[in-house]
Amino acid sequence: MRNVVILGAAMKRFGKYQESIIDLGAECSLHALKDAGVQWKDINAAYCSHVLMGVTVGQFILMPLGPTGIPIFNVDNGCAGGTTAMILARQAIGAGIYDIALIVGIQKMGKGVLGPEILDLPETDKIQRNMGLLSLPSKYAMIARRHMEEYGTTVEQLAQVSVKNHKHGALNRYSQHQRELTLEEVLGSRMISDPLTLYQCAPTGDGVAALVLCAEELANKYSSKPRVKMAGAALCSQVYVPDDPTSIHAFTIKAAHEAYEMVGCGPGDLDVIELHDCFSIAEICHYENLGLCPKGEGGRLIDEGATEVGGRIPVNTSGGLLSRGDPTGATGVGQVVEIVWQLRGEAGKRQVPDAKVGLTHNLTGLVCSVQILTR
Amino acid sequence: MRNVVILGAAMKRFGKYQESIIDLGAECSLHALKDAGVQWKDINAAYCSHVLMGVTVGQFILMPLGPTGIPIFNVDNGCAGGTTAMILARQAIGAGIYDIALIVGIQKMGKGVLGPEILDLPETDKIQRNMGLLSLPSKYAMIARRHMEEYGTTVEQLAQVSVKNHKHGALNRYSQHQRELTLEEVLGSRMISDPLTLYQCAPTGDGVAALVLCAEELANKYSSKPRVKMAGAALCSQVYVPDDPTSIHAFTIKAAHEAYEMVGCGPGDLDVIELHDCFSIAEICHYENLGLCPKGEGGRLIDEGATEVGGRIPVNTSGGLLSRGDPTGATGVGQVVEIVWQLRGEAGKRQVPDAKVGLTHNLTGLVCSVQILTR
Repeated sequence: MRNVVILGAAMKRFGKYQESIIDLGAECSLHALKDAGVQWKDINAAYCSHVLMGVTVGQFILMPLGPTGIPIFNVDNGCAGGTTAMILARQAIGAGIYDIALIVGIQKMGKGVLGPEILDLPETDKIQRNMGLLSLPSKYAMIARRHMEEYGTTVEQLAQVSVKNHKHGALNRYSQHQRELTLEEVLGSRMISDPLTLYQCAPTGDGVAALVLCAEELANKYSSKPRVKMAGAALCSQVYVPDDPTSIHAFTIKAAHEAYEMVGCGPGDLDVIELHDCFSIAEICHYENLGLCPKGEGGRLIDEGATEVGGRIPVNTSGGLLSRGDPTGATGVGQVVEIVWQLRGEAGKRQVPDAKVGLTHNLTGLVCSVQILTR
Repeated sequence: MRNVVILGAAMKRFGKYQESIIDLGAECSLHALKDAGVQWKDINAAYCSHVLMGVTVGQFILMPLGPTGIPIFNVDNGCAGGTTAMILARQAIGAGIYDIALIVGIQKMGKGVLGPEILDLPETDKIQRNMGLLSLPSKYAMIARRHMEEYGTTVEQLAQVSVKNHKHGALNRYSQHQRELTLEEVLGSRMISDPLTLYQCAPTGDGVAALVLCAEELANKYSSKPRVKMAGAALCSQVYVPDDPTSIHAFTIKAAHEAYEMVGCGPGDLDVIELHDCFSIAEICHYENLGLCPKGEGGRLIDEGATEVGGRIPVNTSGGLLSRGDPTGATGVGQVVEIVWQLRGEAGKRQVPDAKVGLTHNLTGLVCSVQILTR
């Protein structure tokens, strides 16, 4: 298999947009192509990640780029869709089927199409839904309570995750929220599901991010920027065994393990991480799932400041889902864009010095994707 | 690249179902596994084609099969989604990344989620929509009128497509409609968009179909049934050049050309075809696009009976979209199931004697997929 590198990366600030997804998608794709030094005609295949936005969205958003006949794949794996798309492209480029591929993650969330009523659920899940248990804030609130009970995690530690991520987000002009929050502001914001307050829940918003992937052996032809290599990528579906609830889902542990194995590295080798902080408690659990600290010590990691820019292992330098935003289909691609900028040294005031190895982690209810990117 | 074969195939009769998609999907997947002689634990990856059915549908429908951690990809390319999923699986198996993969195409259409209002259209398309031009029956009616004007195609020839396909469907216990229709019944049914009457439009319905794909070199381990090989597969997106309207979209011609090239064959080598007869006129146009007859002579092919079972090149032996049904995400997989049965000699009263080479063709507005399967 050939090595695959990320040749170009672009995103639009996550937020609320009036423009159609076609305008948003086409513009961002052109920026990614430009960043890669690649022309539209050089692209052999395109992959579009979105969640329930319509039929053949990828084909629509790429139409303004000009005539083409290339295969365009629409991929939906919830918030893990963008990195799922990357895995498919990596397989095909690695195998020599395509040389260069475009990845677009896009989402407009204005219409509220993502409620649990959209899925034709079996009866057991309907009962859960009617009890409010399929609502994500309730689910994560229960995980938080359990983590507090078992490991002594405090409401202040939870809130501090959001303080940290908003501090990072304030340094990122692509972040949906760009304002620092104090601990008091986070704790004092409206209670959504005890102990999770409003500022501990990722905002809804629109977003688009795009990448150009290329066989490493051909990369020199197009760009002289530092190469970011897709060193390892794992995609796991729900491991349907009784989970430890504070692991959120055991599949993060499995996906991380697979990705570390592929690269021959471990959590100690990472310089920068973008992980799926859909709620403050999620970030603490995933510190543990990814092996950044022993089980139950995620709260302590926050207290130590280890995961801030300047700390031992900076996490969510973009602002994470809590501050940069979480437009589902675009979320994973947005994470990768941040890691590309970090590994290239283009992350400005939030730059992690000499970052060489980055990890992205994202998930949706039944899918988890972990990628390791290296310079 | 390794050769990839279809080891197992199954479908449920297309129609209207009360069961959840989870029950429908799990049951059909188990039938495909059984047909392949493969256990769930042998599957390395799964691909689910559906259109706007919810988030991580593939993961949900496969959950009843038991614990797993495999990658599950949800693919949406409209009615071409099922064959798009097959192309992705073929790439990965061919490259040696996976050995055995499960494909599921599934759709419940009861909620009418597929109207044009779901897509965030640009202004030009909104104008077309408000004029009724994005309604598929109107679009195909105009194509029919143009074909009649340019090539002398008659309303009887159009209707005869549906008569033929319902004759085939009556022989297929998996077909949504299993009743022969006379020419008078087709012509006399309610006018939908002149000249297309009700029985010249594919019905809506629910459906599920599943396949097990496997590296050819490993197939003997599991099954002694006749091998059906994925000899060629092409996926094209809209070639955005001014189309000849009677070609429907030029990309069928391009996709067919690519698939023939991959296999080193031509239309004269085909024994049986499943093509995208969403409306009667579509079948006539695609005879020409696939090269079964010269441009403009599709109507004559119907008159000659060449495309009936027993004719020179039987088309839509399953009943096609018009009779077997068109549950979008499941449609392409259903076509492949029919070709597998034909190439294995399992098609009963509609069997094409000694069929060795089959073609599937399906499309949605901006995507076309053509596959060639051989025994």
